[in-house]
Amino acid sequence: MASSTDQNGQNGHAEVLGSEFTRSVIESMGPNTSPRLREVMTALIKHVHDFARDVQLTTDEWMAGVQLINWAGQMSDNKRNEGQLLCDIIGLESLVDDITFSAATRSTSGVTASAVLGPFWRSDAPIRENGTTISFDTPEDGQVVLMHGTVTSVETGEPLADATVDVWQASTNGLYEQQDPKQQDHNLRGVFKTDAEGKYSFYCLRPTPYPIPQDGPAGKLLDLMDRHIFRPAHIHLMVCASGCRSLTTQIFDEDSTYLSNDSVFAVKDSLKVRFVPRKDDPKAELELEYSIGLAKAY
Amino acid sequence: MASSTDQNGQNGHAEVLGSEFTRSVIESMGPNTSPRLREVMTALIKHVHDFARDVQLTTDEWMAGVQLINWAGQMSDNKRNEGQLLCDIIGLESLVDDITFSAATRSTSGVTASAVLGPFWRSDAPIRENGTTISFDTPEDGQVVLMHGTVTSVETGEPLADATVDVWQASTNGLYEQQDPKQQDHNLRGVFKTDAEGKYSFYCLRPTPYPIPQDGPAGKLLDLMDRHIFRPAHIHLMVCASGCRSLTTQIFDEDSTYLSNDSVFAVKDSLKVRFVPRKDDPKAELELEYSIGLAKAY
Repeated sequence: MASSTDQNGQNGHAEVLGSEFTRSVIESMGPNTSPRLREVMTALIKHVHDFARDVQLTTDEWMAGVQLINWAGQMSDNKRNEGQLLCDIIGLESLVDDITFSAATRSTSGVTASAVLGPFWRSDAPIRENGTTISFDTPEDGQVVLMHGTVTSVETGEPLADATVDVWQASTNGLYEQQDPKQQDHNLRGVFKTDAEGKYSFYCLRPTPYPIPQDGPAGKLLDLMDRHIFRPAHIHLMVCASGCRSLTTQIFDEDSTYLSNDSVFAVKDSLKVRFVPRKDDPKAELELEYSIGLAKAY
Repeated sequence: MASSTDQNGQNGHAEVLGSEFTRSVIESMGPNTSPRLREVMTALIKHVHDFARDVQLTTDEWMAGVQLINWAGQMSDNKRNEGQLLCDIIGLESLVDDITFSAATRSTSGVTASAVLGPFWRSDAPIRENGTTISFDTPEDGQVVLMHGTVTSVETGEPLADATVDVWQASTNGLYEQQDPKQQDHNLRGVFKTDAEGKYSFYCLRPTPYPIPQDGPAGKLLDLMDRHIFRPAHIHLMVCASGCRSLTTQIFDEDSTYLSNDSVFAVKDSLKVRFVPRKDDPKAELELEYSIGLAKAY
């Protein structure tokens, strides 16, 4: 790093604990550390120390950071993950998602791109029947969409039966059901299984932009960084099928605001979709056909 | 960074979101960000992203880290700071202490070196009379020490009257009073004021090595890193006087184990002390004279 120093100090902050100190911290790891943990912690310790030296971090600033992080844990529970949200607003979840999933499959034609999970997925969403709705408290300003498509293996080109399509979205007030006492449990979320032809379908809402929670450390940090708190309109999807690499992604309304400055940096061009008018269906005014290509399993 | 990439990718992980992505996150900060916060966050975002790219951090590994951090907040309260302890075990508190205090005064002869605050200081410790004890539940295996000395301004060379010497230490069971329901409130801590000659004195315990808490994320991380959890025997001090730079430090028993491998990396050679036998005092078997030199205020 440009402004790092060693204990013999060659530059401006000559006396600050330098690379020898950092090495002593790294070398305190014992022989029974797993090789991967050693690799991760070695890099983490180096970067954290270099960061502190680069900006000449003071104890007061560091303690403000500690308090922000403790606050994140204190606000987190089984319905909310503020530590995750702090990572999201500095782009870290998008980056590790890219490292883990997208980079490996980007060159494979037809594979649907991944996007971050976000903090509002629930592992206990109910399984629902194709053609049914996930909107049980449809708001007055909500536009109902029939969303449907086929899940396909890009390896074989064949549709995948019995794939699960887990979908979740916020209501038009910007809240997921677990954030909103006025929505019923599991409103706007559900798991659908593809039929023998690999098809899924459900009614949902046209998504709308919404603010991420402002009452915690992520909201506070966004405010300090003079950034807005909005996410563009999107629907979350998690798609799994036997023999295929599971996909976590989000699709974005191409007409939404905030596509170019998502507060959590999740938008990808290939994930933008267009909602079109639907005719002759009293249950929905819009339609979205969205088919999903899965890569083969690891 | 050696393995960083840009979005056109020149090396091994050619497709991973690279420096352009990082730049877009940094540039999302608005014009009303304070210059210092912009400087700190710019460096933090760069280092966090480079860390993730350097080790090719996966979503599962990142989420394990998020959970560790949330756990830290959930275990923290007004008597415990596990976020701080996580920083301590990777040397960060010692580093920022060094940046903030020691580096600036190291060249001034006679200034007592600083050391980390640690998570067990309390802002509401009682003021006690010189010559009294801080040990109200003296354990059977405890050795009582009369600790005394003079607080001096290194600028003027004069002793400082009305300086406050805030002292706190663990009992021989390794627990501070707020961790131990068997100790009375504020046992083994107190604030003493120097007299007209700059002198302070109190009875305390000879400190003993102890383990840092094992039941939280810091203990878990130490275990994963195959490191021990012990701190060498030490007494905490915070010394303040009008016109002088406040000092937070620790003094270490030169006969203690773990001096060379303190789990929080706080030991400095100049802070090692020798306890000597005390004669003709029924209240103490040991004595420690320890005088403190303060630098002038900022």
